[in-house]
Order: sequence, then structure tokens, then C-alpha cells
Amino acid sequence: MIRQQIIEEIKRKKSFLSIGLDSDFKKIPQHLLKFDDPVFEFNKQIIDATADYCISYKINTAFYESRGLKGWESLIKTFNYLPKNTFSIADAKRGDIGNTSAMYADAFFNQESSGLNFDSITVAPYMGKDSIVPFLNFKNKWVILLALTSNEGAKDFQFIKEDNQFLFEKVINKSQEWATAENLMYVVGATRGESFLNIRKLAPDHFLLVPGVGAQGGTLAEVCKYGMNKDCGLIVNSSRAIIYASNGEDFADAARIEAQKIQQEMERELVLIHF
Amino acid sequence: MIRQQIIEEIKRKKSFLSIGLDSDFKKIPQHLLKFDDPVFEFNKQIIDATADYCISYKINTAFYESRGLKGWESLIKTFNYLPKNTFSIADAKRGDIGNTSAMYADAFFNQESSGLNFDSITVAPYMGKDSIVPFLNFKNKWVILLALTSNEGAKDFQFIKEDNQFLFEKVINKSQEWATAENLMYVVGATRGESFLNIRKLAPDHFLLVPGVGAQGGTLAEVCKYGMNKDCGLIVNSSRAIIYASNGEDFADAARIEAQKIQQEMERELVLIHF
Repeated sequence: MIRQQIIEEIKRKKSFLSIGLDSDFKKIPQHLLKFDDPVFEFNKQIIDATADYCISYKINTAFYESRGLKGWESLIKTFNYLPKNTFSIADAKRGDIGNTSAMYADAFFNQESSGLNFDSITVAPYMGKDSIVPFLNFKNKWVILLALTSNEGAKDFQFIKEDNQFLFEKVINKSQEWATAENLMYVVGATRGESFLNIRKLAPDHFLLVPGVGAQGGTLAEVCKYGMNKDCGLIVNSSRAIIYASNGEDFADAARIEAQKIQQEMERELVLIHF
Repeated sequence: MIRQQIIEEIKRKKSFLSIGLDSDFKKIPQHLLKFDDPVFEFNKQIIDATADYCISYKINTAFYESRGLKGWESLIKTFNYLPKNTFSIADAKRGDIGNTSAMYADAFFNQESSGLNFDSITVAPYMGKDSIVPFLNFKNKWVILLALTSNEGAKDFQFIKEDNQFLFEKVINKSQEWATAENLMYVVGATRGESFLNIRKLAPDHFLLVPGVGAQGGTLAEVCKYGMNKDCGLIVNSSRAIIYASNGEDFADAARIEAQKIQQEMERELVLIHF
């Protein structure tokens, strides 16, 4: 999916919401356990209930790998069930030396090889250029590079400073030598609203994938105030607050209501940039 | 596997070799394609041929994920085939926020959940403490943290300097607040021999996992000269130079010869520390 399509979907749905399918076998409603693949059934109902209100689904691979082969089956089925007009994110945080990152690119971008054909993958920057470029060799695919993450541990290394620039700022600067706003996004945690100001100086045009709204404590208003650009430039993810809104038989309806609530808040923010 | 067992295996086999099963479907010998699971058959024969000469096998998950479900089946079968007295490494380079890293820990350390029960996993440090600690909550399991990698891209961020200390040195320093030489190792590339001197000042006791000997250009003599400690303290990995030593029907014999050659070189180095 190309940049212009993402922008058009944001305009059409008046939403820049991504829903994180962090579907934990131990947390899904009990009545689903009667299905062959309870996690897939959960995801399917969540997707059916929420697709009107989001432009993206993010699948965090950890929740599937943790269940081994069965988990990968659920992952592949879920991927295939995603509506074609939504932007699909493999939240995999991969990255290795060049020839190995090329294998990871096959894993998530080459359906013939792996059964998966995501629009994008999250990548960890620690190993530098040759760990990132193999993903960019796929046409119309995106790297979403970790820059400033939403967790407590972000403080340990991401704020190391050289020449008056933090590590996460160097990641944003340097990576623009390898890719453009047409195939590169950054992960910036919602818990760090004030940092969006500086990030927008370094990357005015890039889309930012923003986790941490909701369960992790960031607010949408602050993210929009400091992070929005003329094309919206934000994909804000919510996982637990939506998919676990209820753990009864009404979980899908409850998820729909939560997703709609966020979409309506987003619609008000989009009016401000005349979308 | 605990530290003392690793040291005893090094003494017993006079080797600190890890063999990387970077088994690429497109590179394995053609005559194996008649088997149900050619990659597993390849690994099985490599393991049978080389187990006398190495103390560890490293499975890089990218080579298996790239083939989707079939690849994960090969991975699980290969894991189950590893000799119990070898140190098993999931070279997965994972790392995410705390609750998600806990899922990755289940994926690689919790056999009941995923079918896998590796001794160790490689982890990327970018997201800091809470991305690493969930792996350490498993008894007798190891985190092998990326410090100074062997690839060209290592230069992009790992040498960022604050207060006269490089990022990779800060990773080594900081992580010792979370773990000890009994459950934490570091990845240090063989291509950077001279750097071992400084790393040994920061981590005199820790085991270092050293990729990049062979195909990537580092020499064993240099690694030992600067990196060895009184307990050996090194696990040196070779992948392609061993497993692809021949691509004919003699591939396993050729791998055995290559592994033995490295073992003999290692034996000479171990004599110097009276092992």
C-alpha cells in the first residue's frame, strides 16, 4: 500500500486508528475455546466489528510465536482475513545482518515463500543500514523503524547523547539516507508527547506509528497537538483497550464501541487540518 | 544449561565452537529435496557429523520463518534433535515492551507453550531493561545481548559516544545492573578483534558469543588473543563455512572436516589457558 492510499483511507474513514491484534490465548473470552482456532475466531470477530473505524491492523508476532506452530497458523489465517484496504503491520521488531534480514523480509513480505505479505514491518535499528535495507528492496513495502519507544526501558539507551543529539534522533536522521517518506515510518511512543515537536523538525513528512495510547498512558490530544502534519502523518495504535474492552460474549460489540469512540476523537482532530 | 556445564563441555571437547544452522532451502544439496523435510534432513546430517567438535548449535530463526509454517516445523524438529549436552542458541534478535518480551520468552523457553526450550536467545538492546528482563525470569536460561555486531551497519549507531563511552560499551555496562555472568552473554563480532580488549575491561567474566569468523572475515587467533579469559569465555560461531563446505552428497563429511579443523585450532588456543 502506497503513501497516497494510506492518506485516502484516512480521509475516507476519518480515522488514523490502527488496532493491535495482541491476541493472547489466555485473555480471550472463554466461550471461544470451543472453536478449532480460538485466537483466529477472536481476531475474525474483532476485525468484523472494527473495520469501519480503523485504517490499519497491527499484528504483534510475539503473541503468535509464543504458541509455536498453532500460533503461526493463527497468524497466517488472521493475515489472510485482514480487509485489503487496511494497512497491515507486522509488529515483529526484527533486524539482523544483511543476508539474514533478507530472510526476514521473505518471512513477512513474500507470500510465496512464507504465506505472509504484510504492507510493513517494524524493525529495530541497533544493527544499522544493512539490517534495514533488505526490507526496502520490496516494492510498495514499508519499514517502520523503532525510534522513541513507549516503554520505561526507552530511557536506558535511546537518550544517549552525542553532539547534542539523542540516539533516537540520530536514528531518524541517519535512516533518511536510506529511505524516504514513501517507504519509511518511525515508531514514536504516545507516552512522550513533548518529544514529537523535535521529531517533526527531523522528519516533517514521515508517518509516525504511535503505540501507547490507552493502556500505556498517552493521550491522543497531545500526540495530535505535537505530531500531526498536513497529511495527518500519524497512525495511532491501540491494542488492549479495544480488543479486551469486554471479556464476555459481547467482546466484539464492546471492541466496536471503543474503536468508534477513538475514531470520533480522531475525526475531531482531522477537522483541524481540513481533512 | 548453567555456566559451569558450558565450561565443562569446553574442557571435555576441547572446543568452544558453535555451529550456526543457517540452513537455507535454496542452498542445501539438491539430493535432499526428495525428503519430506529437506531442511530438517540437512540439519540432522550436519548435527550427526559435527557434534563431536562443537559445544553449541545456533539456530537463526530468520532462515526458518522465511518459509512460514513449513519452516517452523523444521525449526521445532531441529531443536528436538539437538544433542542434550550442547548449548542451544535461538538467534532470534527479539526485544519488545515488557509484556510482549514475556511472550517471546514463552516462544523460545517454554516448551509447553511453543514446543521450544532453547538454553538462550539473542536479544536486541534498543528498548532497554524491560525488553530484556522477561527472558531472565526463566531459570537456567540465558540472554545473549547484542553489543558490537560483526556487520558493516554496526558503525551506524553502536559507536555513538557519550561521556567517552560508545553505545555498545554502555549496553555492556548498563545490562550488568540487570543480570550476571551466570545468565547474560554478549554478542561481539569477530571482525572487530581490537575491540575485545576494551570489552574485557567492562565484562571480564562474561561469555561472549562471537559470530563473523570465517565467511565474514574475522580470525580465530585474534579473537582468542584479545577475548579469551581464564574460563575460556568465548563461544565462537561459524555457520556458512561449515554447513556449506560442500553442496554435493558429501556435504556432511565436508562439514565434519571443517568443524574438526576449527576444533583443532581451538584446542591449541585452550592449551594456552591450561584447559
